[in-house]
Amino acid sequence: MRQHRLALCKEHYLEWMPEQTERFIKKYSMFTRDEKILVAVSGGKDSLALWDILARLGYHADGLYIGLGIDGGFGYSSESHRLAQRFADEHDLRLHVLDVEKEYGQPIPVLADITRRGRGRPCSVCGLTKRHVMNRIARDFGYAVLATGHNLDDEAAVLFSNTLNWQAEFLLRQGPVLPESPGFARKVKPLCRFYEREMTAYALLRGIEYIYEECPYAVGSKTTYYKELLNQLETERPGSKLTFYTRFLEARKSGLFAEQKDVQATLTPCPNCGQPTSAPGLCSFCRLIERAMNVGA
Amino acid sequence: MRQHRLALCKEHYLEWMPEQTERFIKKYSMFTRDEKILVAVSGGKDSLALWDILARLGYHADGLYIGLGIDGGFGYSSESHRLAQRFADEHDLRLHVLDVEKEYGQPIPVLADITRRGRGRPCSVCGLTKRHVMNRIARDFGYAVLATGHNLDDEAAVLFSNTLNWQAEFLLRQGPVLPESPGFARKVKPLCRFYEREMTAYALLRGIEYIYEECPYAVGSKTTYYKELLNQLETERPGSKLTFYTRFLEARKSGLFAEQKDVQATLTPCPNCGQPTSAPGLCSFCRLIERAMNVGA
Repeated sequence: MRQHRLALCKEHYLEWMPEQTERFIKKYSMFTRDEKILVAVSGGKDSLALWDILARLGYHADGLYIGLGIDGGFGYSSESHRLAQRFADEHDLRLHVLDVEKEYGQPIPVLADITRRGRGRPCSVCGLTKRHVMNRIARDFGYAVLATGHNLDDEAAVLFSNTLNWQAEFLLRQGPVLPESPGFARKVKPLCRFYEREMTAYALLRGIEYIYEECPYAVGSKTTYYKELLNQLETERPGSKLTFYTRFLEARKSGLFAEQKDVQATLTPCPNCGQPTSAPGLCSFCRLIERAMNVGA
Repeated sequence: MRQHRLALCKEHYLEWMPEQTERFIKKYSMFTRDEKILVAVSGGKDSLALWDILARLGYHADGLYIGLGIDGGFGYSSESHRLAQRFADEHDLRLHVLDVEKEYGQPIPVLADITRRGRGRPCSVCGLTKRHVMNRIARDFGYAVLATGHNLDDEAAVLFSNTLNWQAEFLLRQGPVLPESPGFARKVKPLCRFYEREMTAYALLRGIEYIYEECPYAVGSKTTYYKELLNQLETERPGSKLTFYTRFLEARKSGLFAEQKDVQATLTPCPNCGQPTSAPGLCSFCRLIERAMNVGA
């Protein structure tokens, strides 16, 4: 690990990762051992490694698998479901499963298609749906915290994108912790300071079976492109990605950005699902489903 | 020009550039026709084009050529001096010339070498020297404004570098105008919104003879690397560079950044050259020259 000037053997590496994670959990005040945590588990290396680490550290962490109904010619969703379930069974952990098609009538790609959101890519519909489902399961089952497996490469790419456009509202919100608000659990990213390759190494060394393939819709996406660009930078200057992300957090903490006037609109419960929304009627997700049902009918 | 969805013939292009420059001069309140402007002229396309445009627009703009004494195997400095002088003569414009070796005893590469500043590259010594000389000539001859030929590619690369490291003090100062302060002329960059290739096109179409070669020390520099990275981005997404730079200026103007406590140290005149400095004795430049003389002696 060139950025830390550190080389570890298998045994110590597998100790080092949870120790570091614990350090980040405390540093950013993510959660305590008294809180119930819901880990969003995709079947990929990051989320399974996160679940593994939290369980090893003794946190009360259950999983949530969301069946998106994405095939991509290799059964992306069914295979990732199988691996998530297998991990849960082997480690005797509780996994919630929600299948989008069973619950809302259509799988993600069809929802995106018939509602014509997202210009050929279902990613925007997918993101909206996952946020909705995570919030719903957290509320229904009383989880205080929602944890996702975003790693440093993910976070740096999003920060890069927001910075290239100087999107104030996103720059001010992005970080390891998004505090809870009425109706929404706290959202945390305990792996946000680990490189993707560090996560891969952990998953391999721990013998975690995960889905190697990326989501077929991620190929050629803007985020994937920014990741490649940042990888070039990292190759040229080891540590750039970590510096970019952590200096941003530090600069923000030490007051680089102005306090913004509270632009958060008043939130009211969606009349259908009850989740807080700034929309004047149904929330975006319920509108999406309504539209899909009308178009589908 | 894909970023403007615009294609112009030679004649209109040569009209469009000064019109746009005039628009930027007004938009950023750079200077008026009553103010004396000193253009830093390197003999390259950007600074000669800037001088040409300001003269065509009827501004009182004289030139300053600084002889750095850089050879690079092809007479970089002597050739760029010849071209700057030739442009001045042909357009009947006044050019101040200051030769660093004649004035301060050694050319830039030797100054850098014997003072061991800059880890193998004379760029830091060169920047320090140029700032000093520009400030000196502006003060000695009563110029209110110092204009440099930085184009969008230059500005975006610097912004990119400052952003990757979230360097607050630089992020808050970078822009088309650095206001005057006691002892220092206002600094302006009228070309900051033109792509490098737009400047090349202008210089070629206007028949300006300029030095094609880059400074030999620019090869492999950090800034050159960032320019290449931004060029990749621009190829993938035309307009990215302009968006990155202009949205930054807009975001800052609309209050993204917090007002910083006035960290500017009290400035006192350097006992040798008289330029304001935060140092407790000689200013950085005079210390550099003093050190060079001691080592050289």
